[in-house]
Amino acid sequence: MTRLVVIGGGAAGMSAASAARRVAPGLDVVVCEAGGFAAYGMCGIPYFLGGTVRRAESLLAYPPEEFRDRRGIDLRLFTRVTGIDPATRRVRVGRQDLGYDALIVASGADPVRPPVPGLGHDRVFTVRSLDEAIRLRRLLDGGAVRRAIVVGAGYIGLETAEALVCTGADVEVIEALPRVLGTVDEPVADLVAAELTRHVRLRLGARLEAVLSRDGGLTAVVDGTALDADLLIVATGIRPATGLLAQAGARCLPDGSVLVDGCMRTSLPGIFAVGDCVALPHLVLGGPAWVPLGPAANKTGRVAGTVAAGGTASFAGIVGTAVVKVFGLEVARTGLGLAEATTAGLAAVATDVVSRSRAKYYPGGSPLHVRLVHEPGGRLLGAQLAGSEGAAKRIDVLATALHAGFTIDDLTALDLSYAPPFAPVYDPVLLAAGHAARSAISTAGGSS
Amino acid sequence: MTRLVVIGGGAAGMSAASAARRVAPGLDVVVCEAGGFAAYGMCGIPYFLGGTVRRAESLLAYPPEEFRDRRGIDLRLFTRVTGIDPATRRVRVGRQDLGYDALIVASGADPVRPPVPGLGHDRVFTVRSLDEAIRLRRLLDGGAVRRAIVVGAGYIGLETAEALVCTGADVEVIEALPRVLGTVDEPVADLVAAELTRHVRLRLGARLEAVLSRDGGLTAVVDGTALDADLLIVATGIRPATGLLAQAGARCLPDGSVLVDGCMRTSLPGIFAVGDCVALPHLVLGGPAWVPLGPAANKTGRVAGTVAAGGTASFAGIVGTAVVKVFGLEVARTGLGLAEATTAGLAAVATDVVSRSRAKYYPGGSPLHVRLVHEPGGRLLGAQLAGSEGAAKRIDVLATALHAGFTIDDLTALDLSYAPPFAPVYDPVLLAAGHAARSAISTAGGSS
Repeated sequence: MTRLVVIGGGAAGMSAASAARRVAPGLDVVVCEAGGFAAYGMCGIPYFLGGTVRRAESLLAYPPEEFRDRRGIDLRLFTRVTGIDPATRRVRVGRQDLGYDALIVASGADPVRPPVPGLGHDRVFTVRSLDEAIRLRRLLDGGAVRRAIVVGAGYIGLETAEALVCTGADVEVIEALPRVLGTVDEPVADLVAAELTRHVRLRLGARLEAVLSRDGGLTAVVDGTALDADLLIVATGIRPATGLLAQAGARCLPDGSVLVDGCMRTSLPGIFAVGDCVALPHLVLGGPAWVPLGPAANKTGRVAGTVAAGGTASFAGIVGTAVVKVFGLEVARTGLGLAEATTAGLAAVATDVVSRSRAKYYPGGSPLHVRLVHEPGGRLLGAQLAGSEGAAKRIDVLATALHAGFTIDDLTALDLSYAPPFAPVYDPVLLAAGHAARSAISTAGGSS
Repeated sequence: MTRLVVIGGGAAGMSAASAARRVAPGLDVVVCEAGGFAAYGMCGIPYFLGGTVRRAESLLAYPPEEFRDRRGIDLRLFTRVTGIDPATRRVRVGRQDLGYDALIVASGADPVRPPVPGLGHDRVFTVRSLDEAIRLRRLLDGGAVRRAIVVGAGYIGLETAEALVCTGADVEVIEALPRVLGTVDEPVADLVAAELTRHVRLRLGARLEAVLSRDGGLTAVVDGTALDADLLIVATGIRPATGLLAQAGARCLPDGSVLVDGCMRTSLPGIFAVGDCVALPHLVLGGPAWVPLGPAANKTGRVAGTVAAGGTASFAGIVGTAVVKVFGLEVARTGLGLAEATTAGLAAVATDVVSRSRAKYYPGGSPLHVRLVHEPGGRLLGAQLAGSEGAAKRIDVLATALHAGFTIDDLTALDLSYAPPFAPVYDPVLLAAGHAARSAISTAGGSS
């Protein structure tokens, strides 16, 4: 009997284990998870913190028994792997070695902790695991948090800020950059900032310098000012948790993400990597990029598990599609932002059009901002949408267009659905595409 | 000075006139509209009837003065064209002739009135024009309609039934076929019927035989049963209003729709046709088809107006995307249904998957039915979605995939957006595509 070892019991790791089990019922499948939970939706953590999701168990795709008893997967919780030896095909677990025939590394991403003194304070959280979230939720339920500071205005920072507001806390968001949400361009980020300031205090271009202990709480020093709080969330970004793989000699990108082929094989024989720790083929960039998001984590897990167990599967690539709810605003993006496109050496312009989510005469509609990033009169490179409704899934039209390699003209030709409660007769995507096409003609390739 | 005459002041006709004016500011543009309104959203009529839209004027894209005074378009209301003479390039208006250099026919579609005695009753309406809707709304506002019968369970019948329920009326829907909404396949139609019966009485396979006068109302004879009502709506379908064009010798399809080229030129020199009266290139069928819907009406108008005025434009085609709100249900479709595909000689199967509109742990989600019509393991041919939320704009992902000629495998590879409030980590489209891909393997091309 051969053995598959999976490092990491998150969505990617458990997808891999389950796929392998389906393909090869006789395979010995062992999953080593450092924490106390497996197969949970990490993206649900903010909603658990805020009370939208009542029980932590609701975030589990399946309870541990499902894997152990029904699927025959040897899921070992609180089991940290501390080393990989590709030569002898063994991983180090505590004081013991565990042999493998195939290894799938699904070690995810770790929070980046800025070099700020005092972050060891017991009221400082990063919210990167369900175990930690449960401890934090206990604190919130106890009524101890009246004032909270969130450091970092990316996806996790903003979702956590909203969750804390939901618990009744007074929240301040601190961001070192002069803008929020670096994954969208400025015009869309400005809409997010405007929505944020309706619910929290927002300090942009502000740096956390230290966290000091205070009786029953903490004091954050931000640009020389002391801010008292009961809780501080560090959400200043994540990085690939690829220490074990790098040590073992796997090829990585400079950002630390692991390079894999279409079957999720690393450069080391018998070792696959999946989920938030890998670089994936970016179909717009035409090369590997690290864009850690849930859907690709699940899909890459399934691919690696299938292949490791002897089946056939491959992962086609990503276009970098993401959506986030920021209070009453849906913010979505796909492909490249304008700065990303320019950095990648592409001749790119952006077209911004604000239209409506419904027919103008149908009540309940709201403004919808569509930003298209494109070659002048040419290929679509990316898109960003923001509005109270209609942004979250409309982005998928543009993601699909990126998969198809569509030009702006192709976009204008799309036969999109129309009924007054759901869209204007010219869908906001078509309006923006039409504008992009016309401005390309009128400016002969200039900025639009 | 040359003259462009447009027959029909609906969305298509006014789009044509406005586009022509933009391209050729010196052109004499005359629009002849038989009714009293121009440039209104016909799709908004049910919402005006039901009171969701308060004022009829709200449905106008622009008031008549906008066209006359600002755009320099000679818009003539209550002006019916009764003949076209392509040889002398003249149209007949009342007792006069009006010469043209280019003619754009945007005559739309007429309701099909079944051969039932008594349909001339003044409480029988078809709701195909704003003029008629205003008369009906007056009746509704007067409180005269407590009981209404809607004959026909297509888009217009269902939207009108909902509107009447909104006014407080007791509504019965009569449909001659054994099912509702012929534009979707049975499994989706069944969901629509179930939603309908929560709000109205529904009689399927029932035939209206006569309408009789009754003091202050009418009596509908349905399968030998007398049903008293204050109002009867005939919504038994529409047909292309192409009498004038056919008489003038334009090439038409057997269903009466006019054949046009990519610039919307008919077979008659100098005569274009646009909107609900034309057959358009169907990108999945690979030939012309009559699918009268608002977005294409607007777009074809713009194309013909541009070309007629000397500019360059073309219409790429349709895939038959549509959405309708039926009480609490969003029902959307694109491409071909299973029966349509089979009739077209395509080897088609259908895959039905019911998943959720949001992450399972996120409150407020609802079941979402996705039906994919596809070649076994091959090309996507069509799709249908139904659910309380998430169907209306998600269909556009599949419409875009049809434009791209995607296979089921291409669909499974799509990088679609995910966040718990908006979708499960595997979007319902991906789940359905995965199911279609796997069933094609397991059944080696059989029905899935």
